[in-house]
Amino acid sequence: MTESISAYLVRRLQEEGVNHVFGVPGDYCLTLFSEFERSPIQIINTCDEQGAGFAADAYARINGIGACVVTYCVGGLKAANAAAQAYAERSPLIIISGAPGRRERLRNPLLHHKVKDFDTQIRIFRELTVGTASLDDPLSAADEIDRMFALAKRHSRPVYIELPRDMALAGIAPATSGPLPPDSSDGEALDAAVEEAVARVSEARRPVILAGEELHRFHLQQPLAALVERSGIPVAATILGKSVFPECHPSYLGVYGGALSLESVQRYVESSDCLLLLGAMMTDVNLGVYTASINRRTSIYSAKDRVSVGLHTYDDVRMEDFIAALSKHDWEKRRFEPFDHPRHPGPFVPADRKMTVAALFHHINAFLDKNMIVIADPGDALFGASDLFISDGAHFLAPAYYASLGFAVPAAIGVKAAAPKLRPLVLVGDGAFQMTGIEISTAARFGMNPIVVVLDNGGYGTERPMLDGAFNDISSWRYAELAKAIPGGRGFEVETEREMEAALIEARSNVSGWSLIHVALDRDDRSSALKRFTAKLGERARGG
Amino acid sequence: MTESISAYLVRRLQEEGVNHVFGVPGDYCLTLFSEFERSPIQIINTCDEQGAGFAADAYARINGIGACVVTYCVGGLKAANAAAQAYAERSPLIIISGAPGRRERLRNPLLHHKVKDFDTQIRIFRELTVGTASLDDPLSAADEIDRMFALAKRHSRPVYIELPRDMALAGIAPATSGPLPPDSSDGEALDAAVEEAVARVSEARRPVILAGEELHRFHLQQPLAALVERSGIPVAATILGKSVFPECHPSYLGVYGGALSLESVQRYVESSDCLLLLGAMMTDVNLGVYTASINRRTSIYSAKDRVSVGLHTYDDVRMEDFIAALSKHDWEKRRFEPFDHPRHPGPFVPADRKMTVAALFHHINAFLDKNMIVIADPGDALFGASDLFISDGAHFLAPAYYASLGFAVPAAIGVKAAAPKLRPLVLVGDGAFQMTGIEISTAARFGMNPIVVVLDNGGYGTERPMLDGAFNDISSWRYAELAKAIPGGRGFEVETEREMEAALIEARSNVSGWSLIHVALDRDDRSSALKRFTAKLGERARGG
Repeated sequence: MTESISAYLVRRLQEEGVNHVFGVPGDYCLTLFSEFERSPIQIINTCDEQGAGFAADAYARINGIGACVVTYCVGGLKAANAAAQAYAERSPLIIISGAPGRRERLRNPLLHHKVKDFDTQIRIFRELTVGTASLDDPLSAADEIDRMFALAKRHSRPVYIELPRDMALAGIAPATSGPLPPDSSDGEALDAAVEEAVARVSEARRPVILAGEELHRFHLQQPLAALVERSGIPVAATILGKSVFPECHPSYLGVYGGALSLESVQRYVESSDCLLLLGAMMTDVNLGVYTASINRRTSIYSAKDRVSVGLHTYDDVRMEDFIAALSKHDWEKRRFEPFDHPRHPGPFVPADRKMTVAALFHHINAFLDKNMIVIADPGDALFGASDLFISDGAHFLAPAYYASLGFAVPAAIGVKAAAPKLRPLVLVGDGAFQMTGIEISTAARFGMNPIVVVLDNGGYGTERPMLDGAFNDISSWRYAELAKAIPGGRGFEVETEREMEAALIEARSNVSGWSLIHVALDRDDRSSALKRFTAKLGERARGG
Repeated sequence: MTESISAYLVRRLQEEGVNHVFGVPGDYCLTLFSEFERSPIQIINTCDEQGAGFAADAYARINGIGACVVTYCVGGLKAANAAAQAYAERSPLIIISGAPGRRERLRNPLLHHKVKDFDTQIRIFRELTVGTASLDDPLSAADEIDRMFALAKRHSRPVYIELPRDMALAGIAPATSGPLPPDSSDGEALDAAVEEAVARVSEARRPVILAGEELHRFHLQQPLAALVERSGIPVAATILGKSVFPECHPSYLGVYGGALSLESVQRYVESSDCLLLLGAMMTDVNLGVYTASINRRTSIYSAKDRVSVGLHTYDDVRMEDFIAALSKHDWEKRRFEPFDHPRHPGPFVPADRKMTVAALFHHINAFLDKNMIVIADPGDALFGASDLFISDGAHFLAPAYYASLGFAVPAAIGVKAAAPKLRPLVLVGDGAFQMTGIEISTAARFGMNPIVVVLDNGGYGTERPMLDGAFNDISSWRYAELAKAIPGGRGFEVETEREMEAALIEARSNVSGWSLIHVALDRDDRSSALKRFTAKLGERARGG
């Protein structure tokens, strides 16, 4: 029997390593949901498509590929923002949307969920992805599906696949076009770039590597580790790239992001006479809102498809080839200027003191173990977390560039599905929690046990130092009481250090469901990184 | 002193009658929020931009114009789905987004919230609006703002305005281009269309008017009423148009939507030998998913800019001119075949019976008074509500075409702001409530008192009869317990008719905050309209 288009799509997802999909059903995608239900892939229904998009993005970041399945427009457009974030931060997310059937479209009728015409949604996703396909032809559908998966993986960015519902059960013709042409470096340019880079690094007194998130996305942690082992060059990480290099490693300096970083890290990195930027997107956040002081003349910058040495650029030099070549070079053994290696802050000794941001992060740091992954939402949750000491084998995930509030709770669901042995520890502000926090309901439904720490400072704390007003206030929820309404979890209200200690202990032992720890903080308490950051952002918000 | 661009924007919104804006602040729009805070316009912060979009859409439907203010991409893209709904259902919604400053964009840096390039968001909103403008030039900004408002009102559809943050305080040059050229009918075509329509209606044995939502959007309820008074022609309403004609009026037949309608209404309308469709969008939902049997040869169809009589069309005949002419015609007094006028079902007498969908809608009908507005979310909340008897002066609002789940709770906030004397009665399914129901928090914060009735049948009940699976189940919340977590409201759990009675009485007297009534229903209980509807949709979902 000929395989149907939907069966092929589901089978190919499995072959690519997708074991869970995230979504909300609707009448234009019911056949597809039914196909998933009959397959070994688990459907994880979220409360809202926004949650599905974020969860699938997080799943893709951990698993190497992920998928979100939604209905036409009313579902798809709610996932547009998650697709945008996946694009900006290079996450290989497959967005699959049901759509009105081909035969239903005759004479352009006003079918429910339609906006301007039947192509509105696919045109929108062209702006947010590296490829779009409508599976409206059984002869080309297999090639289109394969091409979309290949594009998502090559660019580590989202693609969009639309399936008209009357095509879901149509028999699919075999794929004919084979893999994408290989994406290879220009060999001569590669050799020249490597030669020049090796010479500059070898001549430099104080070379430093700045490692970014693209190393994670393109699976280059091993070559990076090999390069550091052979060369001994100290390594800092960007905020987005935090945990891409093991933080316990003696060559690890800490997180670098201009004024956001610890002073010692900033000083060491900025005094480098040869900064080797590897897979580090030069975003405003990674650059500490341009407080970073990087000398372009003495830097070497490897991005996905090119290398810049000083002010000139070698095109068509792939990052993986460049780093592989550097990692194989026979580096001379040298001693570099010593630095303060980041240390675990040690145990937290709670007292009957009111909780502060500083105490919270110290406490969290003492609480973390190797089986945890920290997921930080934008805001002080992220800035405070950038100084956490993430031990070997542990992980860190944050949308530190696109910075969409409300990512972290749904992301915990995607992370747990992709890495069931890890326990998500979510750090999220109160404003962000009110956006998507009810997705803890999804965690409960699928037996997941995230620990969600809500940093409650009564509103949008990141914005207050830029320009304050009543618009930065939000309603005061009793977050812990959500456990009464949403099943499968426990809530804790925390005002003092001792209460925090007790809550963390109980949350750790609550292995079968979610835990929510509501930490009451002073309205104006913030991490020192955030203080520096918002001072800079404030100048710009006021047009500076 | 020269007025700034943001000050001009805020002042013009006021002049257009906008007294509230809905949004979530972010660093790219803080200056604008601050400008609103200093103005008489009230900022209503929602929990999430999705809620702001829906609230502003509802506000626009009631108030004639509404606005939603968000930050760049992470805010704007979350409002894309609401803009789509406003486009599809003709709501004059102004979407205003902050954006990176002009000076920041030099050399295309990776600023936070950016997707592909700085125009990604404006290109997306071109697909969802009747006009977009970036206020990047102080010389043209006033004209652009005026043009956007004029377009939104002319088409009763959304527009998008983007304000680079370094332009917010720039001095604005006076508007120069004046109003849009008038949108007038082709006089000869209008006369011919009216003449032919009058002749057809006069010769017909049984003319019937089908009144749609565009009469409301273009403020044509008065001419419609005049036409009915003079001609005596019976009137049915579409589902989207429900309440556009007073339901107590002796000429009112009821809601017509093919197999969705009461049998008596369906029979009367479909036996008409001259159906006069006025502002009724021919959507699949309005047509009972094409179960409607409308004879095009004998129908007259007036849409915004044209009139079709039988199978031919008069272009450039505006609906308002056409209806005004018909309403002024000196109609012969005639008697038409009598029909069952829809009646109020009378008081509901509760017993110790388990709640059913039928009892719920009877109960709600008995509970409604003139100061209430029913806001129905898509699903059985909407289909059941289509048979409610909405008395004079009362109102009905539902996204019955685009049908985005989760509209109703945020919409209640917009409605209450636009019409403070009305009390919103929200009917929402459990699946939809889990998407956006936490916006009751926003209601509380702004002293609003919606009564939210959650119809809990354990999942996506509208989809089960089409194609069922575990994907149609959702988590069982104890919705009433949300009152413990979210301040300013009360929750009621209802299983029996007597409990419903008690809850409604208490909710009515809870005038200072929100009330949430969680009604437990059988999983397979549904309104008879929904049964007919889903049987039809099921055929199509299975590719029929």
